[in-house]
Amino acid sequence: MTELTSALAAALPDGRVLTDPDVVDSYARDRTFVPPGRPLGVVLAQSRDDVVATMRWASEHRVPVVPRGAGTGLAGGATAVDGCVVLSLARMTAIRELSPQDEIAVVEPGVITADLDRAAREHGLMYAPDPSSYEISTIGGNLATNAGGLRCVKYGVTRDSALGLEVVLADGRVLNTGRRTMKGVTGYDLTGLFVGSEGTLGVITAATVRLRRAPRELATVAAEFTSLRDAAAAVSAIVAAGCQPSMLELMDRTTLQAIDDWKNIGLEPSTRAMLIAQAEGSADEMAALCGAASFVAVSSTPEEAAELIGIRRLAYQAKERLGQCLVEDVCVPRSVLPEMITTIEEVAARHGVMIATVAHAGDGNVHPVFVFDRGLAEPPEEVWTAADEVFRAALDLGGTLTGEHGVGLLKKRWLGLETGPVAAELHQGIKQVFDPLNILNPGKAI
Amino acid sequence: MTELTSALAAALPDGRVLTDPDVVDSYARDRTFVPPGRPLGVVLAQSRDDVVATMRWASEHRVPVVPRGAGTGLAGGATAVDGCVVLSLARMTAIRELSPQDEIAVVEPGVITADLDRAAREHGLMYAPDPSSYEISTIGGNLATNAGGLRCVKYGVTRDSALGLEVVLADGRVLNTGRRTMKGVTGYDLTGLFVGSEGTLGVITAATVRLRRAPRELATVAAEFTSLRDAAAAVSAIVAAGCQPSMLELMDRTTLQAIDDWKNIGLEPSTRAMLIAQAEGSADEMAALCGAASFVAVSSTPEEAAELIGIRRLAYQAKERLGQCLVEDVCVPRSVLPEMITTIEEVAARHGVMIATVAHAGDGNVHPVFVFDRGLAEPPEEVWTAADEVFRAALDLGGTLTGEHGVGLLKKRWLGLETGPVAAELHQGIKQVFDPLNILNPGKAI
Repeated sequence: MTELTSALAAALPDGRVLTDPDVVDSYARDRTFVPPGRPLGVVLAQSRDDVVATMRWASEHRVPVVPRGAGTGLAGGATAVDGCVVLSLARMTAIRELSPQDEIAVVEPGVITADLDRAAREHGLMYAPDPSSYEISTIGGNLATNAGGLRCVKYGVTRDSALGLEVVLADGRVLNTGRRTMKGVTGYDLTGLFVGSEGTLGVITAATVRLRRAPRELATVAAEFTSLRDAAAAVSAIVAAGCQPSMLELMDRTTLQAIDDWKNIGLEPSTRAMLIAQAEGSADEMAALCGAASFVAVSSTPEEAAELIGIRRLAYQAKERLGQCLVEDVCVPRSVLPEMITTIEEVAARHGVMIATVAHAGDGNVHPVFVFDRGLAEPPEEVWTAADEVFRAALDLGGTLTGEHGVGLLKKRWLGLETGPVAAELHQGIKQVFDPLNILNPGKAI
Repeated sequence: MTELTSALAAALPDGRVLTDPDVVDSYARDRTFVPPGRPLGVVLAQSRDDVVATMRWASEHRVPVVPRGAGTGLAGGATAVDGCVVLSLARMTAIRELSPQDEIAVVEPGVITADLDRAAREHGLMYAPDPSSYEISTIGGNLATNAGGLRCVKYGVTRDSALGLEVVLADGRVLNTGRRTMKGVTGYDLTGLFVGSEGTLGVITAATVRLRRAPRELATVAAEFTSLRDAAAAVSAIVAAGCQPSMLELMDRTTLQAIDDWKNIGLEPSTRAMLIAQAEGSADEMAALCGAASFVAVSSTPEEAAELIGIRRLAYQAKERLGQCLVEDVCVPRSVLPEMITTIEEVAARHGVMIATVAHAGDGNVHPVFVFDRGLAEPPEEVWTAADEVFRAALDLGGTLTGEHGVGLLKKRWLGLETGPVAAELHQGIKQVFDPLNILNPGKAI
């Protein structure tokens, strides 16, 4: 340990600070290829007080702090920077309270998202936000990125379930934002400001989240198409008909092939796309709206539905088997989803790049995953060029760079295209208010 | 006109600036008793450029600007301050776009809330947020206060429908926040920050709002109770049973009496409370959960339902017939709604104050209206004392000062009880970033 990290260790209970280079390295990355900087050490916080002590020390010594949950992020938001301390919240795993009467829970940031959902379901409730990674991601990471998921199309994103936060500020002071009530308009929306700020404004040490009534019965439809565009058209038809799906997921051939190679799902050679839709009630109507499909099935049991959705949740891991992945996360107005999908196919063909696409199609949120050789340190030039064209096409279609993953490091080079100079100046002003020394996840998100 | 207002008039198209004292006075108040200051004049903006010119002039001459919509606010947020210019957005009434495919609309701030809802319904959609005043309130005012309404219990508040904003900043620069897509996490949530900021951070000149599928069939239940507590208990039962009402409204005897005196609704002498509930589907289940009611009716036609809800929407106007009104807007966790209601009854009795209560009960959002003599310039001491006790009781029950009306001027004396010094400092810091000269609605909200 250096003098600096010794001072940190002295300010914390025993065993909280790790400095072994190999161990530290394992806390320096998220799920992207982005090469991390070299941290001074890692703090494994177990309480709010640990976070307070860490931030006081960091402020005193001007040391950057990179907060992290489970490291499942896809934008480089939790990638370590040189000379930082990585502050892991993964050990703060208490569900402090779960009130079925008030339909809220108070949770620590290290709680695994799916664990909270399961705890809620014991009371007929659910925690709605469910990023694909929800069996391994944490609530804290979800809050930091304002994570989306499969059920967002009906229930909204993480911010829509966040009622209040306990936050440790850059200087170690503790702030409580928001409320325990369903509504509340006292003061500015600091809760909403922290959610999605990617660790640049404060460290969330607890959250009061909204639970929702779990649906009584869900019908699930799976449809296979011989063209991606037909599948995208079915999405528009299902939304326009008012089916109000709670899930409407699209996978392209490359994605399905990667899953089939791994799990042998019996993929037909002619299948170019699959749609998985779920709703309360209207399965037959949704199935009928997949008129152009080569195959449609309405699942008859919850087990069958879970299996289908399980296939979808495997998509990213299946692609990681093909090579390194640069994941985009563009979101467009729903009506132009077919155009977005077509553009992605054209870009892939033009540059000879492998792009495997999944989409939270009901939200217009498309994940083109650019697969490249595992031996390369970073994506080859043609991948960056293709990625650039997809980003610009999304913006031209009235869309956004990132629907749910965040900007992190990966999308900073395109940020200015979307936000412009006035917004950039205001972002810097807000950052200055919360973190005048610029020690919280510097260089990320804004 | 003074030299100052002449310069303003010269910067704007003809007829935009009013300085006649009587006319100006009619733009100086909202719907509270709060005595306004004396403005220099009123700007009737008809375009974003008018707002830009006004803010440039105001910045140059350090003149406070008080933005306003229809002046239906209940917290003094739009009350004029001495030496200000009142900036009315009421004439910016264009629905710039309404896209049924993308389920969004782009609207100017002067659009009447119910007009947007009606425009959406032509396409099978709705604009969900519906403050009781929605036939006379504007979208701009709703955004400024993050207004709630009767349907919030299912569809959320105004912020939940705001996707993006066009804002004129204090110095006249134009900022576009947010997006046209259902999801998006690029940068900090500036949209959410402006919504509910009560005109202190910028002037909203357009909003991209989310529309939702209008429900196909709604069942409405009305139930009368001989005790307010029984009615509150039925609320808890309906929520706990998972009926997912889209409306769950409670009125007390004093409110019902005021409506009956005005509109002769045939109120029974023994009725102490009425509940109006609406949901997709489950009318019979909700009716059964009103077991303690003296009378329950399930409405059989949309006209009957509209009539019932119309009665509820008259509640505030009916109370205004009784005298001047100080309106509270506390919100508590739903499980303690009966305690909150009981406390309000006790406070009224203890201080001999007339309190008429309505509640968006499904949200725990309670409006105790303190009625006092019309001849008084402001509420008598016992009303302030009673109001103070109700605010403190709400906070003690884990609630908030304001569920949907905003802080304005009326609740500033209690603000510190809820937010505390750290949040107050951050609020001032944010204000400084957006409005360094403190000319935007100074002295309000924070």
